[in-house]
Amino acid sequence: MYKDNTTAEIDNVLEKAVQAFHHYKKYSLKQRADFMRAIAVEIEALGDELLTTANAETNLPLARLTGERARTIFQLNSYAAATEAGNWLNASIDTALGERTPPKPDTRKMLVPLGPVVVFGASNFPFAYSTAGGDTACAIAAGCPVIVKAHPAHAKTSTLVASAIFKAAEKCNMPEGIFAHVYGAGFEIGTYLAKHEAVKAIGFTGSFSGGKALFDLANQRKTPIPVFAEMGSVNPIFLLPEKLATDTENLAKQIAGSVTLGMGQFCTNPGLIVAIDNEPLDKFLSCLKKEIEAIVPSAMLHQGIATNFNKKLVDALAQKGVQIIGQSNTTASEAQGQITIATVAAEIFLANPILHEEVFGPYSLIIQCKDENQLLAVAKAMEGQLTATLMATPTDVKSHQALLNEIQEICGRLIFNNVPTGVEVALSMHHGGPYPASTDSRFTSVGADGIKRFARPLCFQNWDDEFLPDELKNANPLGIWRTIDNVLTQDKI
Amino acid sequence: MYKDNTTAEIDNVLEKAVQAFHHYKKYSLKQRADFMRAIAVEIEALGDELLTTANAETNLPLARLTGERARTIFQLNSYAAATEAGNWLNASIDTALGERTPPKPDTRKMLVPLGPVVVFGASNFPFAYSTAGGDTACAIAAGCPVIVKAHPAHAKTSTLVASAIFKAAEKCNMPEGIFAHVYGAGFEIGTYLAKHEAVKAIGFTGSFSGGKALFDLANQRKTPIPVFAEMGSVNPIFLLPEKLATDTENLAKQIAGSVTLGMGQFCTNPGLIVAIDNEPLDKFLSCLKKEIEAIVPSAMLHQGIATNFNKKLVDALAQKGVQIIGQSNTTASEAQGQITIATVAAEIFLANPILHEEVFGPYSLIIQCKDENQLLAVAKAMEGQLTATLMATPTDVKSHQALLNEIQEICGRLIFNNVPTGVEVALSMHHGGPYPASTDSRFTSVGADGIKRFARPLCFQNWDDEFLPDELKNANPLGIWRTIDNVLTQDKI
Repeated sequence: MYKDNTTAEIDNVLEKAVQAFHHYKKYSLKQRADFMRAIAVEIEALGDELLTTANAETNLPLARLTGERARTIFQLNSYAAATEAGNWLNASIDTALGERTPPKPDTRKMLVPLGPVVVFGASNFPFAYSTAGGDTACAIAAGCPVIVKAHPAHAKTSTLVASAIFKAAEKCNMPEGIFAHVYGAGFEIGTYLAKHEAVKAIGFTGSFSGGKALFDLANQRKTPIPVFAEMGSVNPIFLLPEKLATDTENLAKQIAGSVTLGMGQFCTNPGLIVAIDNEPLDKFLSCLKKEIEAIVPSAMLHQGIATNFNKKLVDALAQKGVQIIGQSNTTASEAQGQITIATVAAEIFLANPILHEEVFGPYSLIIQCKDENQLLAVAKAMEGQLTATLMATPTDVKSHQALLNEIQEICGRLIFNNVPTGVEVALSMHHGGPYPASTDSRFTSVGADGIKRFARPLCFQNWDDEFLPDELKNANPLGIWRTIDNVLTQDKI
Repeated sequence: MYKDNTTAEIDNVLEKAVQAFHHYKKYSLKQRADFMRAIAVEIEALGDELLTTANAETNLPLARLTGERARTIFQLNSYAAATEAGNWLNASIDTALGERTPPKPDTRKMLVPLGPVVVFGASNFPFAYSTAGGDTACAIAAGCPVIVKAHPAHAKTSTLVASAIFKAAEKCNMPEGIFAHVYGAGFEIGTYLAKHEAVKAIGFTGSFSGGKALFDLANQRKTPIPVFAEMGSVNPIFLLPEKLATDTENLAKQIAGSVTLGMGQFCTNPGLIVAIDNEPLDKFLSCLKKEIEAIVPSAMLHQGIATNFNKKLVDALAQKGVQIIGQSNTTASEAQGQITIATVAAEIFLANPILHEEVFGPYSLIIQCKDENQLLAVAKAMEGQLTATLMATPTDVKSHQALLNEIQEICGRLIFNNVPTGVEVALSMHHGGPYPASTDSRFTSVGADGIKRFARPLCFQNWDDEFLPDELKNANPLGIWRTIDNVLTQDKI
């Protein structure tokens, strides 16, 4: 339906983005924030057409899409507020000491934008992590033009959202080239974008293979660029003994809900559940079985994801020692994955790397440990994760400090008696974790701290006040927080 | 003199570092700061032996070494103060909203350490950017054990400084393995360290080839790790017309001093000077020639650096169109580089990539531009730089906005009417620039913001107050700045 762009067209788009960058980087924080808010308004103005288009392309229910649209609008508006507040700029000033030998110069530092950013959206979040999603919002906030490559699974939805961004850009008098929307169903256009010298950073949400390919391309360039790829993970839940014994049914309900939420198509879906094998675990498994059997599977996002889920599920279940505990009663059609819970002994899990891999969809594997030592060994054997969850009583926490110590090292978000699904959009959120959950554990793709991904510090030494950016002028005309001679303040100099 | 460690010894060192990490990451900010201050005390206690040893190994004069030792001690003490103040932790809290649908969880975020860090010190800074230098101080501040590979050119100095760190570690009851000092004169040990799974980050100061090799090794690991390589640059100075015409002699003095400071062996040494070819430039060149001829060259750091400088100098001077303007009168012996200033026409510079390369030592090339357009073209053609300097009057600045716009994109520090040599140790300093000046333009290797290189955010969701780190507890027992529900405050909750 949408023809791939040619490389000549991409060259043209990027030339305009570079031109736009030289203007846009000087736009005020307020102008950037106004643009973001205008995008939110235009997305809302697309009305039901946006929802029905996305529903037809992704199989996601209208209620979910309505919620995701609200989340997208909230992201744009709340990141706009954060942009204007300016704390993310990390502005700092050290005043001169002329009488020192040698004289101490005046130095002032703030974050400045990197340049044109390419965003590869997520198949599972057509609004919140796609065209006008978190990466786009953060790049615009930082002062960067954005080039979105439409996700082929929802190109029509992406085109609609792009039209809203174009309208907002026009209304806000943005420079030509501030935003571009391109198509590329295969790898060629994505590869071409990642290698293009005009591109200064990449945002990506998707599979490990996709993210890793971009990461490698970016690092092999003459001038390497940062790639922020959020590649998902298995998000282990550790069920500790006292909690498991005293809250069995409730845990089973919570976990069944989290595993099957949105047909398991969240990057925070809990794919591994780790516990010591004892009577309470048996009871938990039988509760979980009942919960799972009662859930009616819905259609997955698209045929490719369903086919991939069913293939990976068959592979996982074929591994030695893996036993099915419960499955949804409805037979899975090709477009519908069958919700599945299985178990495996910890020693088998530890010996078989296939069991550590993500099966993207409604599947979870319960790892049965013989004892506390095996619980610890399983935690140590895990790769980097977006999240890790501890289901525990206070007594459990106190008696499992070594476990907690290990779990902290493998995740970006450490959850206590909550499920990992549901990623709050807040400054204190961290969505990103040690590799391979993401390519850069130091940056988040959710929350206003994500703006920092697309900026770098620039130090101004010995400049006259009139030539400094407003953010660093003596009078502090924007009233932002700055660290002046090591003291955090909103004062002027 | 110092035998290379075996890989088995390295394995052992790293196993201890991992063990140390699990303890040290829980040490308080104050304990870390006390350790840093104790290192400073022990370095001072080494007394003259440290200075004479470094002098014998590096040829650096005692006065310079005394200054560098003071800088190293200042770094340790000032970063210790920043560590305790805790602003670098970027702590943020969003409180729960139980009544919301779905309920909003309590989330709290702060930076946590990455794990064992390997530091490769600089040949040109035996104290400040070597064994107990900026990288080591920042890693310890962040909560990471450090493994220093001694620079083969000053291994004895490094061993002395390491003894001071060991003493401090013992006095401060640090865990065994918090610091290690290893030897490897060739590439083998460095490569082995960079590929080792226990290593979580690398700090490096040195050549482009060395930094790039580590960067590639680190990205090709099963689990890639960040490499913070500061690889130097040519630090262009742009002389704008009015300034050049009105301040000619003074500019020549300033620039001659900067080019020859420490025999040009600073990563911020100005290797390119760009100006429009006119009468004032002729006058500037004849002043510069006089200044340069009057300077007596001193010995370079070591034979390898001198040989390399002389080789690269011969290459640079052999390029078509390059003309020597002035050289120090003293004939260079093998161990002494000959201070040299040359010129080349901008069109030749633009066409010859060899002329863009750093010649590490006291050499600078003046690029003569026909007009303003050529000045802009030269700026656009430059690679990433640690610094770029504008020598200009206010009128020059106003009439060169397009040039300023380009220059900002190529550097990490933008200097106005100051020389690039002399990197102030301050929070607002940025020492690092777009690739290839450094491998990650988002982080600095000078100033307390360098601590952030060795940390990543961790979000705690829904934890009881008693289990949270002190930094995130409701009562804010450390009194640090935190962003609570989007407001920056030192208050408790």
